[in-house]
Amino acid sequence: MFSKILIANRGEIAVRIIRACRDMGITSVAVYSTADREALHTQLADEAICIGGPLAKDSYLNIRNLLGAAEASGAEAIHPGFGFLSENPDFAKACEDCGIAFIGPSSKTISLLGDKVAARQTAREAGVPVTPGSDGAVGEYREVERIAREIGFPVMLKAASGGGGKGIRKVDGPEELKNAFMEAAAEAAASFGDGRVYIEKFVADPRHIEFQVLADALGNTVHLFERECSIQRRHQKLVEEAPSSLLTPEKRAEMGAAAVAVAKQAGYRGAGTVEFLVDGQGDYYFCEMNARIQVEHPVTELVCSLDLIEQQIRIAAGEALGFAQEDLALHGHAIECRINAEDPYHNFAPRPGTVEGLHVPGGPGVRVDSAIYQGYTIPPYYDSMLSKLIVWGESREQALARMKRALAEYLFDGVITNIDLSMAIISSEAFATGNFDTNFLEKSDLLAQFSRQGEGE
Amino acid sequence: MFSKILIANRGEIAVRIIRACRDMGITSVAVYSTADREALHTQLADEAICIGGPLAKDSYLNIRNLLGAAEASGAEAIHPGFGFLSENPDFAKACEDCGIAFIGPSSKTISLLGDKVAARQTAREAGVPVTPGSDGAVGEYREVERIAREIGFPVMLKAASGGGGKGIRKVDGPEELKNAFMEAAAEAAASFGDGRVYIEKFVADPRHIEFQVLADALGNTVHLFERECSIQRRHQKLVEEAPSSLLTPEKRAEMGAAAVAVAKQAGYRGAGTVEFLVDGQGDYYFCEMNARIQVEHPVTELVCSLDLIEQQIRIAAGEALGFAQEDLALHGHAIECRINAEDPYHNFAPRPGTVEGLHVPGGPGVRVDSAIYQGYTIPPYYDSMLSKLIVWGESREQALARMKRALAEYLFDGVITNIDLSMAIISSEAFATGNFDTNFLEKSDLLAQFSRQGEGE
Repeated sequence: MFSKILIANRGEIAVRIIRACRDMGITSVAVYSTADREALHTQLADEAICIGGPLAKDSYLNIRNLLGAAEASGAEAIHPGFGFLSENPDFAKACEDCGIAFIGPSSKTISLLGDKVAARQTAREAGVPVTPGSDGAVGEYREVERIAREIGFPVMLKAASGGGGKGIRKVDGPEELKNAFMEAAAEAAASFGDGRVYIEKFVADPRHIEFQVLADALGNTVHLFERECSIQRRHQKLVEEAPSSLLTPEKRAEMGAAAVAVAKQAGYRGAGTVEFLVDGQGDYYFCEMNARIQVEHPVTELVCSLDLIEQQIRIAAGEALGFAQEDLALHGHAIECRINAEDPYHNFAPRPGTVEGLHVPGGPGVRVDSAIYQGYTIPPYYDSMLSKLIVWGESREQALARMKRALAEYLFDGVITNIDLSMAIISSEAFATGNFDTNFLEKSDLLAQFSRQGEGE
Repeated sequence: MFSKILIANRGEIAVRIIRACRDMGITSVAVYSTADREALHTQLADEAICIGGPLAKDSYLNIRNLLGAAEASGAEAIHPGFGFLSENPDFAKACEDCGIAFIGPSSKTISLLGDKVAARQTAREAGVPVTPGSDGAVGEYREVERIAREIGFPVMLKAASGGGGKGIRKVDGPEELKNAFMEAAAEAAASFGDGRVYIEKFVADPRHIEFQVLADALGNTVHLFERECSIQRRHQKLVEEAPSSLLTPEKRAEMGAAAVAVAKQAGYRGAGTVEFLVDGQGDYYFCEMNARIQVEHPVTELVCSLDLIEQQIRIAAGEALGFAQEDLALHGHAIECRINAEDPYHNFAPRPGTVEGLHVPGGPGVRVDSAIYQGYTIPPYYDSMLSKLIVWGESREQALARMKRALAEYLFDGVITNIDLSMAIISSEAFATGNFDTNFLEKSDLLAQFSRQGEGE
């Protein structure tokens, strides 16, 4: 086992990884930008090294500085967390070349899964359904037109090297197709240096359901059931839960096996997530595979009684999984709300500032994963997520009641957060009955309500 | 189910009960003394009623004021928590007479179990081992002498209406017996208005292991396994865990059945705890049964995935238990440390004061049950317990690692706590190996170390 791990990240996930290291008796090395001198992860780690200026490109995205810090500290492994360089094959490759263990899949697998066209092909080869569409990137407009007519409108055009909603167009009818294709290709070329675009059928009002997988270096691959992540705003998840109330045990087993098949086909190693869209008929389609730990991993931890960061570290150290698929069982229900420093009353504007007062909820079933302390000043340079509030209950009903209780107890003074919106979401009829899809927010009048309240100030 | 419950308590346990009420959709009514206007339980409850002055006799022990508050608020039930009036049969009787549900056993059962001689007799009738000794209170010294000779020295003399260490004498040999008997009887008479004393064999270096029982009003009684509570200072528990590393599955089943037998014999209803002493040979002896929720109940909650306060409320409302003994299984390992505002460097002097800074631990496996917030001023009138830090792990080893991690993260500014001592205890070789008994602190040099460090200031 490693004796020292460097954490190439900040905020809540860096704190989370430090805690796992501590539980395992591993020395943790934090890295921090000059804007993060007072950050919790900087203070909590066993060692901390400044790696550059506030802008992410100068610090958390600076591969040379990160590897220098790893070498200086004597770290044997690097945990990339999520975001930043976590799915950057060059970073994984640079670690490999330096003989430092990258806690994640190989650079080759990251490259494969980062290419959406190649990832779709991988799923297809694994016998897993993908949305009807082109087999790969389509170069000619004539080909786009042919496939669109074949699968039927609406269709989606997507950048092969996509991400962050760039290079994506929904096309409702043939008259819009040509312009959309040219725009998407141009945007993809500008954003990713890769103008390839592929086409797929648009799935209306889908659920976003993802499966956690774990694969060791010896070829053992299991899934840890699903997370329901349909509650989103502009592709940013807000509330996640496990299990999904949509899935029957049979469908869960089928999709879980599909997720494992994709991971195996990709030669996956570590903790990864296979994302599916599920349509109104209950048909599911492979969407993409994320080659990293997810923000919402704690809901899986609570229903599986496992520490996923620990599992990642054990796998990277060459250990075999300590359990087989049949050893895993779902236990209760877990829900997570992301607490962001953003203002739902004013179009979700980020709200950096100083946390002047803080009261953290507690009691039965409540877990808080946070990077915040009273007196902490949130820097304006990074993601707005402050904390994750996660609850466990024997039943979904109990978990829901506990989330309401914990949200009501969570108090921030001096900083505006999305706690009110989270409370409104989980208190809604649609959420309570499990009757929602990825267009939950658009279909509800919650955003309009918050916007009106903001105007009324 | 009740729609409104009054909580006849303060501090952490009042907050705990408010949370259970909230999870169940029940309106909570806090009561508070004039010293507790700013207390967390006062602020957190749905309603709050001032019931008197700072001294407990004027507020939390004032039956008339409590019943008045219950009537004024329209509460249908009263939860007594622990301490204060929780095991006072007069309070339970007064609730019964007013038609308010007392969330606990009947006044008759409380009376029976409060009389140590009667409780021993109850255990004996249930076929459960008690320490060898007198069948009941012994009136004459000649009788004491005869029994002492029969069971062998050392022996314990104990007040029949005992509690808090009063009216108790350990007697090492016959020459000390007469004086000890007269002293114990006099102290018992002075402390409890009841000079009756009984005699039992002294158990050297025992483990204190207690079993949680739940009994509904329909006669269904189960146990929820044991808690290991041997780490104590002057009969105050400091660290508790579940399960006990001492018990084999067979011994656990045997003692659990014994605990259920005692509860049934006592006509018990609600959540109760049967305490045993276990000697070096693994023989166990009934010690007493506590007719209330225990401070350390969360460790049982974590290994059984149940909310014990919810169970108490359901039972008091007449519901049947939702599970049978065979449905219950142990899941992982839990440890609790009590965080007290007391100074281990200066003979555990209470340290009321203002919590100027507070950082609460979080992350996987960590639960905090607390009545503290930043800026809170701890009043000098009550118990020094501020918070309970509880961790869960798959194994005892993981739970222990998580407790060390969480204790290291728990920061109080402005108030002296016993966190350092808790860390020293759980970091000790004896605790790590499970090789300890109720004399753990006396046998270790921890108290001397802390005392020396205090002198060195």
